[in-house]
Amino acid sequence: MLYIIGLGLGDEKDITLRGLEAVKRCNKVYLEAYTSLLSFGLSSDGLSTLETLFGKVITIADRETVEERADEILSEARVSDVAFLVVGDPFGATTHTDLVVRAKKLGVFVKVVHNASVMTAVGVCGLQLYRYGETVSIPFFTETWKPDSFYEKIQRNCMLGLHTLCLLDIRVKEPSLESLSRGRKQYEPPRYMTIKTAIEQLLEVKQNHTQPAYNEDTICVGFARLGSEDQMVVAGSMKQLLTVDFGAPLHCLVIVGETHPVEEEMLGFYTLGGN
Amino acid sequence: MLYIIGLGLGDEKDITLRGLEAVKRCNKVYLEAYTSLLSFGLSSDGLSTLETLFGKVITIADRETVEERADEILSEARVSDVAFLVVGDPFGATTHTDLVVRAKKLGVFVKVVHNASVMTAVGVCGLQLYRYGETVSIPFFTETWKPDSFYEKIQRNCMLGLHTLCLLDIRVKEPSLESLSRGRKQYEPPRYMTIKTAIEQLLEVKQNHTQPAYNEDTICVGFARLGSEDQMVVAGSMKQLLTVDFGAPLHCLVIVGETHPVEEEMLGFYTLGGN
Repeated sequence: MLYIIGLGLGDEKDITLRGLEAVKRCNKVYLEAYTSLLSFGLSSDGLSTLETLFGKVITIADRETVEERADEILSEARVSDVAFLVVGDPFGATTHTDLVVRAKKLGVFVKVVHNASVMTAVGVCGLQLYRYGETVSIPFFTETWKPDSFYEKIQRNCMLGLHTLCLLDIRVKEPSLESLSRGRKQYEPPRYMTIKTAIEQLLEVKQNHTQPAYNEDTICVGFARLGSEDQMVVAGSMKQLLTVDFGAPLHCLVIVGETHPVEEEMLGFYTLGGN
Repeated sequence: MLYIIGLGLGDEKDITLRGLEAVKRCNKVYLEAYTSLLSFGLSSDGLSTLETLFGKVITIADRETVEERADEILSEARVSDVAFLVVGDPFGATTHTDLVVRAKKLGVFVKVVHNASVMTAVGVCGLQLYRYGETVSIPFFTETWKPDSFYEKIQRNCMLGLHTLCLLDIRVKEPSLESLSRGRKQYEPPRYMTIKTAIEQLLEVKQNHTQPAYNEDTICVGFARLGSEDQMVVAGSMKQLLTVDFGAPLHCLVIVGETHPVEEEMLGFYTLGGN
């Protein structure tokens, strides 16, 4: 059996009882490392926090491991219980559909243990999840590569009065250009897009449009470390949020559409200089 | 402190360690009863399962209780730790923004413990959450009252190729018309909309439109008891899903938009008569 278990958003305490039971039953435990694992006690001193809680050795599975070693993981899961832990919900912002498809094709049973995802936890700011349009991802721009397909989606949401959740780029274990040219893989340090960078890129893109969907006065909500003890939620115009230091990752951003009175009242609690 | 704690989707084992810790710290524990509580051991024989797990007496808070006794709950929370438990995520499909707004106005500290919500758990069928448009709610039709504002939203999502999550009506503790006329409140038995009723209503509404956004051949995914051990997920045309017995509540429905190959592959596993 392959258990795909959501860890939730904060730290090791955000696993569910069902998830914990399943992990303890497993012979092998993998942990996906696509997103930030800092709050799970997985920074420099190894896997201590989670491993202590689970009483298991954990194997970190970055994107490469999962792609290259999926068959191995799945053969293990065919004969014994294997846990694949993911931050958030298994089918939230980062999806693990590929692994499930491969498992099902091989006849490996899959069980999913759900958990909180950034995609619903943003509800904490008071904007109703019903009133969100399509979610967009904002990738890091480079000097020469500025993909802006998110703009059109935001524009559509704005025209419909809907809110837009912007998921911000994460670059973990990116091979450095230098190392690629030398034929020996070395990795860039992980990069997590900040709200500041996201807004700068959003404002850069809107300059290409004559009647932009948003501008520096558009109200947004910035979230940092959502679901953690030290989460930060601030509402304000893009211009205002540019000046806020949101601290450590992960960050995400909501572009606010039309609001109802209750939504406004809740947003007020998070507004810069608000009540 | 007022703790608003998500219980997740399945049963008592879906609370997180953080949530359980918080409940155990609380002097008073309320449980919102807007949605189905059947799987939390709260059917006929009282609150046994959750109360045993928590070692606490639980007070059921239906919509009336929350509206009428919010001040009382909040005064308790001002001087001691109070837990308000909700099925799913506190800000998922059913929102508790009102209570939070009132708490914040009274200066009561609020802490939210997130959990899985139907709004992300539907990801299990393989349709990417990125590719969903606005969520709609489908209310029970009566002979004389057939509100169909969901149609326009579905139409918009379809035109954009987006998937639509349809949340189905729940009627808990509705005063019976008869009892209202007698001036003494008696309640109708709880009603949970089935996928069959939802599709019948969807097809009824589309008859009012000359170029309907969907028809009985439109592919949908039906979910019953999502997140529970006995969850059921079936993909098929509206016509096909009408013939499926999805069993006990809660049900929800996704109207499928344009699909990518990986989405199709995953859907295949849930298709009637599929692999």
